Amino acid sequence: MTAASQIALILDLLGVFFFAVSGSLLAARNGFDLVGSLLLASLAGLGGGVVRDVIIGTPPAAFSNPAYLIPPLLATVLVYFTVAGVERIKRVLVIFDAGGLALFCVTGTVKALYFGLNPVAAVLLGVTTGVGGGLLRDVVANEVPQLFDPHDIYALPAMLGAAVVALLVGAGWFNLFTGTAAASVVFVLRLLSWRYGWRAPLASRT
Amino acid sequence: MTAASQIALILDLLGVFFFAVSGSLLAARNGFDLVGSLLLASLAGLGGGVVRDVIIGTPPAAFSNPAYLIPPLLATVLVYFTVAGVERIKRVLVIFDAGGLALFCVTGTVKALYFGLNPVAAVLLGVTTGVGGGLLRDVVANEVPQLFDPHDIYALPAMLGAAVVALLVGAGWFNLFTGTAAASVVFVLRLLSWRYGWRAPLASRT
Amino acid sequence: MTAASQIALILDLLGVFFFAVSGSLLAARNGFDLVGSLLLASLAGLGGGVVRDVIIGTPPAAFSNPAYLIPPLLATVLVYFTVAGVERIKRVLVIFDAGGLALFCVTGTVKALYFGLNPVAAVLLGVTTGVGGGLLRDVVANEVPQLFDPHDIYALPAMLGAAVVALLVGAGWFNLFTGTAAASVVFVLRLLSWRYGWRAPLASRT
Repeated sequence: MTAASQIALILDLLGVFFFAVSGSLLAARNGFDLVGSLLLASLAGLGGGVVRDVIIGTPPAAFSNPAYLIPPLLATVLVYFTVAGVERIKRVLVIFDAGGLALFCVTGTVKALYFGLNPVAAVLLGVTTGVGGGLLRDVVANEVPQLFDPHDIYALPAMLGAAVVALLVGAGWFNLFTGTAAASVVFVLRLLSWRYGWRAPLASRT
Repeated sequence: MTAASQIALILDLLGVFFFAVSGSLLAARNGFDLVGSLLLASLAGLGGGVVRDVIIGTPPAAFSNPAYLIPPLLATVLVYFTVAGVERIKRVLVIFDAGGLALFCVTGTVKALYFGLNPVAAVLLGVTTGVGGGLLRDVVANEVPQLFDPHDIYALPAMLGAAVVALLVGAGWFNLFTGTAAASVVFVLRLLSWRYGWRAPLASRT
Repeated sequence: MTAASQIALILDLLGVFFFAVSGSLLAARNGFDLVGSLLLASLAGLGGGVVRDVIIGTPPAAFSNPAYLIPPLLATVLVYFTVAGVERIKRVLVIFDAGGLALFCVTGTVKALYFGLNPVAAVLLGVTTGVGGGLLRDVVANEVPQLFDPHDIYALPAMLGAAVVALLVGAGWFNLFTGTAAASVVFVLRLLSWRYGWRAPLASRT
């Protein structure tokens, strides 16, 4: 395993962990049990990457590398022991969700480029990977996805991040430092938009 | 690119556009923002085809050909500038949805046959492609899918259309004219069933 | 076709039938029509296996073997003629759902091992296959999935069953008898947990 792929693996596992925590938090808020928490953590954490790999046409990492099962387990245990009261859950959920979104739009774009997709498709797949886990999490828990909440901006930072990463890779400037910087920008933009209620125009002008 | 595959591409892109408009319209009706509109347009327009291609085992057209991203962009802009008031949205949505359904059950069946699936599987995949985009659209927007609305007939015209296309291809009679005719019949049957409330028997006799 | 693969096919088709009945029953309870019943039966019955095969990277059995379309048709007809009154539907639905869960966690694990996945991944894919059809069924019908109902234990028996099957295959002890026994244990555990309200701890301690 090269240094580059080790870095990619670590960022990917970190993204899985963030989304998995968001899944367990949603399970806690909705009164699901521990098994439901583990399953929603797994779906949120692994779902986006499985969709990405199936579209690329490579065996899903979550099924070829057992290490991917550890973050959902950790997330389930962590939420079980630390969450007290449901009032603060939404806030923490948004933060962890933003972390997963930020990391996955970077790793998704890089993986798509690595497998030879054109840059436009790679950006689209990066965004799909970034928003996919959270979308699956909200859909199976029967909620309107955060993605569609018009009270703040969700997908735009991921689109920006994926596009920046495609440019960085194209220019030969992508490395651990610039990749982490791109993910950090996505993370900060998403949280600022949530904190200050930045909005995009509605779907219809009227 | 042969004439046949150019025709198939044009019909496919037209289907993407129809479903994408239906996605943007649903976004407008539900009060989503422009980014949500673009994402729901993309999911509705591209989702059925991605599922089709993943099941066939070929790289999804939406990710290998950037042209597929234009219809969702167009649909989002079109809905943003033209939709006024939400009363008429449902009506227009049903019409565009019917267009996507009609085109995709044809192109889905043809693509499945082209990749060597048996006729029965090709019809099943054609129906899946036709109803898939609308189903994904409704599910992520947290609505009971139109597909299951017992007040009119939705999937039956697509089943009929896919079966007719499989017969046409088998007989060597499939071309732009017969393909468009088949799609038109599906479109008209779907709209007539909606307008006049044609119903199928309920799932249970009692 | 060897005896082993014939046995696997029969168990798989039986699982399709059980989940298909659960889909048609849910369609009947929600007032869908016959076409919706057939589609929900197909999604519930075939969805888990299609997800399994797409993740493995093999052509989905449902599309390569037309025999897979018979159980959903049978289920739709059966529910149409036999279901009277919606009070008892939930009870019968849970029983058929348990049958599908039990059979699919076994066949999913075996198929994953057969295609060379490591045992941990095979168990994960067995559980995914087992819970997948029911999850898709509930999600598209816009219900909170049974899977997440904290009033009884749903996925735990499937996890246990998949793990036992992986051990049986590893030890060379897997055959029709031990496989059926494993499925029966999953089935009985699931129904006991439902009948007696066995519960897992909630996702959060407080």
